[in-house]
Amino acid sequence: MSRGKPSQEQLALSLPMLDIVNSKTNCFDEDIDCRNYSALEGIPECKKLFSDILDIPSDNILVCGASSLNIMHNLLLKAITKGVDGNLPFSQQGKIKWLCPVPGYDRHFAMTEYFGIEMISIPIYEDGPDMDKIEEYIKDPSVKGIWVVPKYSNPSGIIFTDGVVTRFAKLKPAAKDFRIYWDNTYISQLSFEGQEEPILNIFDECKKYQNEDIVYIFASTSKMTFPGSGVSAVALSQNNKKDYLDYLKYQLICFDKLNQLRHALFLKDKKTINEHMKKHAAILKPKFDLVLKIFDEELKGLASWSKPTGGYFISLYVPHKAKEVINKCQEMGVKLTKAGSAYPYGKDLDNSHIRIAPTYLELDELETATRVICLAIKLLNE
Amino acid sequence: MSRGKPSQEQLALSLPMLDIVNSKTNCFDEDIDCRNYSALEGIPECKKLFSDILDIPSDNILVCGASSLNIMHNLLLKAITKGVDGNLPFSQQGKIKWLCPVPGYDRHFAMTEYFGIEMISIPIYEDGPDMDKIEEYIKDPSVKGIWVVPKYSNPSGIIFTDGVVTRFAKLKPAAKDFRIYWDNTYISQLSFEGQEEPILNIFDECKKYQNEDIVYIFASTSKMTFPGSGVSAVALSQNNKKDYLDYLKYQLICFDKLNQLRHALFLKDKKTINEHMKKHAAILKPKFDLVLKIFDEELKGLASWSKPTGGYFISLYVPHKAKEVINKCQEMGVKLTKAGSAYPYGKDLDNSHIRIAPTYLELDELETATRVICLAIKLLNE
Repeated sequence: MSRGKPSQEQLALSLPMLDIVNSKTNCFDEDIDCRNYSALEGIPECKKLFSDILDIPSDNILVCGASSLNIMHNLLLKAITKGVDGNLPFSQQGKIKWLCPVPGYDRHFAMTEYFGIEMISIPIYEDGPDMDKIEEYIKDPSVKGIWVVPKYSNPSGIIFTDGVVTRFAKLKPAAKDFRIYWDNTYISQLSFEGQEEPILNIFDECKKYQNEDIVYIFASTSKMTFPGSGVSAVALSQNNKKDYLDYLKYQLICFDKLNQLRHALFLKDKKTINEHMKKHAAILKPKFDLVLKIFDEELKGLASWSKPTGGYFISLYVPHKAKEVINKCQEMGVKLTKAGSAYPYGKDLDNSHIRIAPTYLELDELETATRVICLAIKLLNE
Repeated sequence: MSRGKPSQEQLALSLPMLDIVNSKTNCFDEDIDCRNYSALEGIPECKKLFSDILDIPSDNILVCGASSLNIMHNLLLKAITKGVDGNLPFSQQGKIKWLCPVPGYDRHFAMTEYFGIEMISIPIYEDGPDMDKIEEYIKDPSVKGIWVVPKYSNPSGIIFTDGVVTRFAKLKPAAKDFRIYWDNTYISQLSFEGQEEPILNIFDECKKYQNEDIVYIFASTSKMTFPGSGVSAVALSQNNKKDYLDYLKYQLICFDKLNQLRHALFLKDKKTINEHMKKHAAILKPKFDLVLKIFDEELKGLASWSKPTGGYFISLYVPHKAKEVINKCQEMGVKLTKAGSAYPYGKDLDNSHIRIAPTYLELDELETATRVICLAIKLLNE
């Protein structure tokens, strides 16, 4: 129950992809031989795929390796060592601060912490992060960025409303080198009911306000095909693209274009993706239904929890007892994410939040694990 | 003629690899599901493959993504931002210097230049770089590293002798955070005659002198299967491994394990690799023979050149006229690597060196291109 990993059944959905690039496949995309060095920006077919996924022009997309987290890391390192778009490197600007909507993604926070960036927690509500607070904080020129997961937010599961997206697009930070790290990793995910739940297009909104340089938009196929063996991409303004390529070209000749081709041929277009993602949704739905049903049965009055319509997580709130519940579960054989991991520096001041990841387990194991969590909470309330 | 790219015929040798991981393949390696998140260090089968390739224990190997250049970049960035093995980050140590045997690999030099590291040229001879000079320079604690391609050196084609390797293994630099970037990218390459040309094992030598931490050893399958879609690895001491993993874990969850599995199943072991590399050698031999034959016929007294026994390049020396020859060739439709690109800051003080890359072209095109180069040299000597 500790990580947001797809189950065996979900992985099986993409097995046909492993046959799609074989010894008889035409490995050329336009004049690019996917088997040889070239095309640092990614192959046209795969740029088009992410263009479909994100509804952003191909020309604003760079298709990279298997990990979108790795692109974020790379852009952050660029900012630290060489600066953003001609500004001084972060390493020469003294204290650097970063906004962190909470609860959030532990790997985001771990990265900024590791590089000594001061993290500021921003509460996240049903419609998105507290935009008043964000608009206030960005008046400080040492605030250089923000982590967000705008759709099926990790771990609260919420989707940013149109109003929130627009306020992001209109941000005018004091720091010219402030960037929104818009981690749209769940963009292709459907609701557990198999429906599309659209989110306003941040890129179009930014254009509307002549503010395209403010955002880096990340996506990947990790939750569509095989996590760790997928393809990732970043969408960015022409200006940001040039700035990033000038950095990227020193570190490798090109990314794995055969894997890009494999994904482009398998996922094809929006329609094919939706059909594929419906199958994922059908596998996820009973798992989330089960956990939420058990919480309803057992935890009324003892805890509260999010009721996500999609994504990979449920946030469970057990005020002042999260650490104790997690330890108790561990004793009883159920591993949960470390207490506080959804907060900067691992500090959940209310000691309340537990991230529940129901996707990886089979239904019977999931029922047992969930009952154990409920039992732990009851024992600690006796 | 500008880049060291394998030809169509060479790429065709690895097409069967594209069938080897398919929808029916068992994607588990021990208890690791190659289709899901896990195993940042790489899968056991692929660690074993690189252990065979490098003759270094699996436990000292990290298998990474498609690009070994990218691992070098990552280790350099680590040194700059977080330091090497507990030492101060380079960014806090003032001027940093790097040793660069010349002629060398342009992408190595471009990387150190980009990060503002002062590069010092070291002449390279038939047996390896000038070790006297290296032993002298490393007394300076601001000298933090050296780039080397020890086997079929890019672009001179030489192989470091045992004596040179041992002197590398015995280096005792003033800087505790000095590292040899031992780019063993051609380690599996056979001679054009299809024979193994062994090079002394730097890792074993370092052990002998209790100096294991001084070297990072890089390898990849780029010149074995598909450049850009291969697998890369770094071999390093337990101490260096721990130090690197502590950095690496913040930037991604894992590398592409399905591609690791694909390569492990296809390249299997040393014997299978040698059979495969013999086929590469058989394709490369007539190309190098042809170029060297034409040079012999046409350029006696006008130029000198290396006569490599393996690798991807020939170094052609045309004193004081390299830039002019390259421009003249460009006018006549033959593209060569930029003059000076094999030297730090692009500065070939003798304006003499031209890197010839015969591998990508078919024999007839190669003959035409080589004749054009000879013609250009003759015209400029009239």
